Amino acid sequence: MTRADKTERYADVQQRLESSLADEHNPITVMATVASILKERFPHFHWVGFLLVEQNEMALGPFQGPPACLRLPLNSAGVCGTCYRSRQTVLVPDVTMFQGRVGCDAVSKAEIAVPIVSHDRVQAILDIDCIEASSVDEVDQAELERISGFVAARIAPVGWPTKG
Amino acid sequence: MTRADKTERYADVQQRLESSLADEHNPITVMATVASILKERFPHFHWVGFLLVEQNEMALGPFQGPPACLRLPLNSAGVCGTCYRSRQTVLVPDVTMFQGRVGCDAVSKAEIAVPIVSHDRVQAILDIDCIEASSVDEVDQAELERISGFVAARIAPVGWPTKG
Repeated sequence: MTRADKTERYADVQQRLESSLADEHNPITVMATVASILKERFPHFHWVGFLLVEQNEMALGPFQGPPACLRLPLNSAGVCGTCYRSRQTVLVPDVTMFQGRVGCDAVSKAEIAVPIVSHDRVQAILDIDCIEASSVDEVDQAELERISGFVAARIAPVGWPTKG
Repeated sequence: MTRADKTERYADVQQRLESSLADEHNPITVMATVASILKERFPHFHWVGFLLVEQNEMALGPFQGPPACLRLPLNSAGVCGTCYRSRQTVLVPDVTMFQGRVGCDAVSKAEIAVPIVSHDRVQAILDIDCIEASSVDEVDQAELERISGFVAARIAPVGWPTKG
């Protein structure tokens, strides 16, 4: 995928999010739809989804793709744990170079994790696994951080439903 | 898909749910994983997901497949609205025969909607669209109702996160 093609696809995603989700304030509905639109527009995104930050762990939220790890500890050494603790996007063009990565499958070659910060907390992580190495770059980072801000604005301060 | 093949696939799904989700009590995590496992095992399921019943509407929850309608009124004449009000599974082998159906896309030929009843309320709807007519039958109904019970047991009485 060329840089121009990628930029154009993200512009289309952004337009679709704004036209369909502008007035939607259920964060689960927003996340489920964001994952679906991203998966549809970027075929090399093998897995697109959200982890919901609970009190002591991250729990799997809405996603598109094969089944994944249900829970990760907040101190996980992997990509999502690092993203949670640093409050920064973690861009991993080659997953074999990331020590401590928690891989749910063997086909992923590149990964990016973007924090969703709302009410001064990392409330969720947007995580994307790609089947092509080097397929995530600073264009993805900038665009996905914009999408993260869009989702963050739709998360209520009450947090997630608690365990039953 | 033969009846025997279908039964075998559902047995596999059931086993995977019980082995991976037995101790999971975040309903969003459960629903997201159930949708993923069903979509992976049944390629003719074009769209698999959940609608979350809020006070006045149903909001789109975790799903796998293309983007879908975000909200439906509880009095919707469609398949999910009928399922909500009747508290019964609605089995639609041929969508052209269901008057009032709310179709989000043109490729769906058959649909089944199963209520998730917990704490004496329909808390969610499991909805599946198929690209083959007559591809859902009483085997799907029985198996999906079992899965619905599994999900229902993992929904806390507190309900869904409210609007921000």
